[in-house]
Amino acid sequence: MLIVLAKKNDTELIEHIQDLLQRKYSCDAHVIGENRRVIAVPGDSAHVEVDIFKNMEGVRTVNRVDRPYKLACRKQRDKSEVEVKPGIKIGSRSNVVMMAGPCSIESEAQLDETAAMVKEQGVNILRGGAFKPRTGPYAFNGLGEEGLKILQKIAEKYDMATVTEAMTEEQADLVCEYCDIIQIGARNMQNYDLLRHIGTCSKPVILKNGLAATHDEWLLAAEYILAGGNPNVILCERGIRTHEKEVRFTLRLGSIPALRELTHLPIIVDPSHAAGKSRWVGDLAKAGVAAGADGLIVEVHPNPEEALSDGPQSLDAEQWKDLMTDLTQMTNALDKELL
Amino acid sequence: MLIVLAKKNDTELIEHIQDLLQRKYSCDAHVIGENRRVIAVPGDSAHVEVDIFKNMEGVRTVNRVDRPYKLACRKQRDKSEVEVKPGIKIGSRSNVVMMAGPCSIESEAQLDETAAMVKEQGVNILRGGAFKPRTGPYAFNGLGEEGLKILQKIAEKYDMATVTEAMTEEQADLVCEYCDIIQIGARNMQNYDLLRHIGTCSKPVILKNGLAATHDEWLLAAEYILAGGNPNVILCERGIRTHEKEVRFTLRLGSIPALRELTHLPIIVDPSHAAGKSRWVGDLAKAGVAAGADGLIVEVHPNPEEALSDGPQSLDAEQWKDLMTDLTQMTNALDKELL
Amino acid sequence: MLIVLAKKNDTELIEHIQDLLQRKYSCDAHVIGENRRVIAVPGDSAHVEVDIFKNMEGVRTVNRVDRPYKLACRKQRDKSEVEVKPGIKIGSRSNVVMMAGPCSIESEAQLDETAAMVKEQGVNILRGGAFKPRTGPYAFNGLGEEGLKILQKIAEKYDMATVTEAMTEEQADLVCEYCDIIQIGARNMQNYDLLRHIGTCSKPVILKNGLAATHDEWLLAAEYILAGGNPNVILCERGIRTHEKEVRFTLRLGSIPALRELTHLPIIVDPSHAAGKSRWVGDLAKAGVAAGADGLIVEVHPNPEEALSDGPQSLDAEQWKDLMTDLTQMTNALDKELL
Amino acid sequence: MLIVLAKKNDTELIEHIQDLLQRKYSCDAHVIGENRRVIAVPGDSAHVEVDIFKNMEGVRTVNRVDRPYKLACRKQRDKSEVEVKPGIKIGSRSNVVMMAGPCSIESEAQLDETAAMVKEQGVNILRGGAFKPRTGPYAFNGLGEEGLKILQKIAEKYDMATVTEAMTEEQADLVCEYCDIIQIGARNMQNYDLLRHIGTCSKPVILKNGLAATHDEWLLAAEYILAGGNPNVILCERGIRTHEKEVRFTLRLGSIPALRELTHLPIIVDPSHAAGKSRWVGDLAKAGVAAGADGLIVEVHPNPEEALSDGPQSLDAEQWKDLMTDLTQMTNALDKELL
Repeated sequence: MLIVLAKKNDTELIEHIQDLLQRKYSCDAHVIGENRRVIAVPGDSAHVEVDIFKNMEGVRTVNRVDRPYKLACRKQRDKSEVEVKPGIKIGSRSNVVMMAGPCSIESEAQLDETAAMVKEQGVNILRGGAFKPRTGPYAFNGLGEEGLKILQKIAEKYDMATVTEAMTEEQADLVCEYCDIIQIGARNMQNYDLLRHIGTCSKPVILKNGLAATHDEWLLAAEYILAGGNPNVILCERGIRTHEKEVRFTLRLGSIPALRELTHLPIIVDPSHAAGKSRWVGDLAKAGVAAGADGLIVEVHPNPEEALSDGPQSLDAEQWKDLMTDLTQMTNALDKELL
Repeated sequence: MLIVLAKKNDTELIEHIQDLLQRKYSCDAHVIGENRRVIAVPGDSAHVEVDIFKNMEGVRTVNRVDRPYKLACRKQRDKSEVEVKPGIKIGSRSNVVMMAGPCSIESEAQLDETAAMVKEQGVNILRGGAFKPRTGPYAFNGLGEEGLKILQKIAEKYDMATVTEAMTEEQADLVCEYCDIIQIGARNMQNYDLLRHIGTCSKPVILKNGLAATHDEWLLAAEYILAGGNPNVILCERGIRTHEKEVRFTLRLGSIPALRELTHLPIIVDPSHAAGKSRWVGDLAKAGVAAGADGLIVEVHPNPEEALSDGPQSLDAEQWKDLMTDLTQMTNALDKELL
Repeated sequence: MLIVLAKKNDTELIEHIQDLLQRKYSCDAHVIGENRRVIAVPGDSAHVEVDIFKNMEGVRTVNRVDRPYKLACRKQRDKSEVEVKPGIKIGSRSNVVMMAGPCSIESEAQLDETAAMVKEQGVNILRGGAFKPRTGPYAFNGLGEEGLKILQKIAEKYDMATVTEAMTEEQADLVCEYCDIIQIGARNMQNYDLLRHIGTCSKPVILKNGLAATHDEWLLAAEYILAGGNPNVILCERGIRTHEKEVRFTLRLGSIPALRELTHLPIIVDPSHAAGKSRWVGDLAKAGVAAGADGLIVEVHPNPEEALSDGPQSLDAEQWKDLMTDLTQMTNALDKELL
Repeated sequence: MLIVLAKKNDTELIEHIQDLLQRKYSCDAHVIGENRRVIAVPGDSAHVEVDIFKNMEGVRTVNRVDRPYKLACRKQRDKSEVEVKPGIKIGSRSNVVMMAGPCSIESEAQLDETAAMVKEQGVNILRGGAFKPRTGPYAFNGLGEEGLKILQKIAEKYDMATVTEAMTEEQADLVCEYCDIIQIGARNMQNYDLLRHIGTCSKPVILKNGLAATHDEWLLAAEYILAGGNPNVILCERGIRTHEKEVRFTLRLGSIPALRELTHLPIIVDPSHAAGKSRWVGDLAKAGVAAGADGLIVEVHPNPEEALSDGPQSLDAEQWKDLMTDLTQMTNALDKELL
C-alpha cells in the first residue's frame, strides 16, 4: 500500500499515520523518497481500511498495490481446474464445458424430456432449479427437496452430473446430498453467512456475479468460500445491470480476459439470463466461448411457453440443436473440445 | 395488461394468447378496438409473466398497466405511519425522524459515548451493528448477540429505541428480542427466504435498496415482508452503484417523490453509505430532508479513525452537532419537526 | 400509441387528450374497449411527445407501439448492405469486413508500416485518425488535413479503402474529399448539426454509439443522417460506460441480435476502445464476430508504446497476426468469409 | 505519478520506463525506496498517458497523484465567483442564484408571459432556448436567431440577464452578441472544437455534465475553455444516466461537495432535466440547494401542456411560486440569500 501526502515532509501527519497503522493494523510503514511524501506499507495489508487514510486531511491518494484476496488471486497458481466428475474438468485450457437444462424442475416427465435433449447433444452436466429465487412473492418457487430427488434420478438415468441453486444453508446441505455442483445466484453473491457455509461443503460451487458487483467484490465473495476450505469455486459471468434495458443484462465479456489476470479460478458464462430472449441466447453463447469462457450454462426447455419460470429465455429443441452445431464448429476452429 | 399485435386481426395468434392466458394463468383476455390488434387482460395479472408474451413472434409490445405489488402499492392507502415507540412515528407528514449511532457496536464504553452524543442532539433512535456484512472475509464482523445486549442496555440508559441489521433468520429472531427495528441491508434485499421470515416478525423493518435494484424490484422485496404479515416496512434509499466512483454511491433523491406515487410506505435516507466520506455526509443528509425523506439514518462515532468499520464515513462529535443545527433550521423552514 | 387511463370512462380527460392530440399533433385518437380506459392513436405518432400524456393526472401508462425512427427501422427493409468499394460490402450475410490501422496518423513512415501489416493479413480497409478528439486540451490532436493526405497516399499504394473520423462540418467535407468512409465518434453521436451535415455527404458513415445512449437514441441519431439523404449508415458498437472500471468500456454484444430486429443497418464492433488493453482486444474481437457483427474496426500499431494516442490498446504485429489467424478459422467455422 | 513494479529491483524495466518517460514525455523519473519497486515522476505529468505504463508486463499499478487539469483545479484558488451582471455573482458563498424560463422560446408573447412569472418571484436571470438539440430529427428545434432577438428584447423589458444554449461555433457567436451566458449542453460536453471556440468567447459559460462523464472528464472539458482564455466557467450538474429509469436522470448531489474539493469553479444544479416530471422538480431543486449548489436553472412555462419542448418537466405558475416560497425559507435557514 502506498500513501501519498499533499505536502513534503509533513512530520506530524507521517507519525499519525505510522502510529495508526501500527496500533490498529499491526503494519509497519516506511517513508520513501527524498521528499518524504510517500509512505509505503510492505507485506500483507489486505486488512487495512484504505478509506480511513484517504479521508485524512493532508493525504493526497492511497493505493493498494495488492488486491485484498489472497486465495483467489493469480499469485496462488496460474489456473485451477475443477473436476466435476471423472473426466470432466472445468478450467482446462483445452475444453469448453457445457451445462444445460430447464430453469425449474417442474416434473419428472419434463426433466426427463429435457435431459434427453441435452444429452443427445453430448452434454454431461444437467442444470435444473429446485429452489427458485423469484422477484415477487406470488411466483412459482420450485419443488424443493422433491425437485432434487427428481434431478438425481434423471441424472442417473442419463449418466450426467448435476448443478442446482441453493439460497440457504439448509438448501445447500440438501444440494450436497443429491447433486454435484452447488450454484450461488447473483442475489446471494454477498450473502456472507451462506458463503461461509458453502466454504465447508464438499461439492464444487458456481458463484455468479452480483448485478452491481465489481471484480474485487466478486473475488472477495469467492475468497469467503475458499477461506472456508472449499477450493472448487467456478465464477459465472451472468451480466450486470446497466442503462441498457432492451437486452435484459449486459454481459461483461471483457471481464473474461481481465479476470484471468487476477485469479486462477475457472470462468463460465450464462448467456440465458443476460439475453432474456431465447432468440438472442445463441449469439451471446457463441460470444462467450469466443471470449475464452471455460464453459457455458444454458437454459433449455422442451416447451418454453409452458415453462413455470424463465420460459422466454429458454431454448427449444431446435434452437438448442442449432447452437450446439455452431459451438462444436467454433470450438474446433479454436482448437478446443466441447464437452 | 395490454398486448399489442403486429398485424391486424391475427386470429391464430389471438387464440393462442387467449388460450395460454386462460390455461396457465387463469386470466380472461378480450380483444379490443376495431383493428383487433389489442388484447386486454383486466383484473389482477401480477402473476402473469409478461416476457412470455413479449417474446412471441407477431407480438409488438406488452404492457402491464398495474404494478405487480398489491400490498405495497399506493392503492392500498395514501401513506403509512410506522410507530417505533410511543410518540415516534415514521411516515408522518409533519416529522423527520433521525436515527444515529456507530456502524458497529465495539464495546459498551464506545456505544455509551456515542449514545450520549446522539441523545444530546435530541435524537431518540440509536443505530449500531452487531452482525456486520463485510465485503471480505478478513474484516471485523461484529460482536453478535453480545453486541445486541450492549445495545439494549445503553438504549435503556438513554431511553432510546434501537435499530440494527440482521442477515439471517436466527439473527432476525435475536434482533426482535433485543431491539426495536430490524434492518435489512442492500446485500440482502433479494434474500427471499430471509424476507419471508421477516414477514413473520413483530418488529418494524427498514429495507434498504439493492445497489442495482429498480423501484419495482425494491417494492416487490417489501411485498415479500408485507405478504408475510408484517405491515411495518420502511424503505431506506442508500444509493446505487453507477459509473460515478468518486462518491461511493449515487443517492437517487428523485426516487423519493417518485416512490411516493407508487407506495404508501415511509422512505428514509442513508447519507453515510452514499457519501463514503464523513465531510460529504452532511450535504447529502440535508439534501435528503429537502427532497422529502421521512427520516435519516446516520453513522456517528466518537473517534472515527479508531472505528472498527465505516470510520471514513462516520461523523465525529463536531460534524454531528453542526449537521443537527442545520437540519433543525431546515426542517423548521419546511414546517416540519425534527425528532 | 396507446394511452391507458386510471379510471373507466373519464369523459373529461378523454376529451382533453383527444383535443390536445388533434390540435398540437394533428392526430386522431379513438377510445377502444368497453371500459373506455384505453385511447389508441393509429398511424404515425413519432412526433407526439409521450411524456406530456404520461404526466397528466388520471393517466396510468402511455405506450408507443412504433419506434420513433421511420427510415432506420426494420420495416423499411430486412438488411442493408453498404458498398465501400467495388467488391467490399458491409452488411452482407456472408462476410465479416475488417478495418484496421493506427489510432492516429503520425507520419507517412508510421502509416506505411502499419498499412503493410494490415494488408499482409488480407485486410482492405485502412483506418487512421487525422482529427483526434482528446479528453484533455494538452494531448496530441492529430495532423489534420496533412494526415488525410498521407492516408490517401498510403491507401493508394496498398490499394485499400480508408476510414477516418470527422468532428466538425469542415472536417467532414475534407474527409469526403480524401477518404472512403466518415467516422462519427461516440462523443459526437448527438451532435445534431454535424449529423445533419453528414446526411448531405456522399460517403458512407460509421456511427459509433454514445457512452450512455439507448438503442432508440442511437437509431434516432442514424435517422438524422438518413433523413438528410445519406442512406449508407453503419452502426458501430464500441461499448458503454458502466460501474465496471477494470475493463475500459462494457461492450453490449447482446445489442447485435437486438438491433437486428429493430433496424436494417449493418452493425460492426470496435473491440479496441472497449478493451482498453491490447492483450484483451483479441478476445473481444472474436466475441464480436461470434455474436454476429458485420465487421470489426481494430487499432494496430507497429510500435504501440511509441504511439501518440491509444497505444495501450493497439495491437502489435504479433498480436494482430494471431488475431487474424483465429478470426479466419472462426469465420470459416461459421460459414462466413473474412474480408 | 507513481509507478509500482511487480518485482523488486527490475533494472531492465526501470530503465525502459525511465527512457520512455524522458524521450516521449520529457519527464524525469526517480526510483524511490529500498526495494526499488516504486518509480516517482515529480512535477507536471498531466500529459503522460498513464495507460501506456499500466499496460506493461511487470508493472503492478500506476497512479497519478495530481489531476490532469491545471486551470480548473482547486490549487489555482479556493472558489471562483462569476459575475453575470453587476450585483449578480454566481459562486459567492452567501448566495444561491436562480435562473428560470421556458425550455424553448416559442414566441414573444410566450416569453413575455414566462419572464413576468419568473421576475415576479425576484429572479434576475432568464433562460430560454433558441437552438434546441432534439433527440430525433422530426421535432421542433428552435427559432434560431429570431429567438435570440426575442430573448434580448424581453430581458430588457424586465431588466434580466439571459442564458441560452449554443451547439455550434456560429451559434456561440450569436449567443455572445445577444445574451449574457452561453450554455453548453450535456451532448456537447466533449465537442472539443466547440469548447475551444467557447474559450475565446467573452461571455460566461454554463457547462453541463455529459450523461456518462466522470468528474475528471467534466473538469477536462472545462479545462479546454479555461485554456482558451475564458475564465468564467460554471459547472451545471444535470444528472447521469443509470439503471434507474423511473426518474429521467439520476442527479449526483454528492458530486457537489466532492467537486468543491477538486475545483474552484461554481456549481449549479438543473433539477428539471433530472426529474423529467414537473411534480418531482421541486423536491430535487430543494435538494440541490440543501446539498450546497451555487444556483439552480429551472424550466417554467405558463402552459406546460402546450409547450413545444420539455412541457412535461416545466413548472406551471403555481408550482413555480410554491417552489420559490420553499426555497426562500430554506436558503434563509441556511444563512444564504436567494437571488
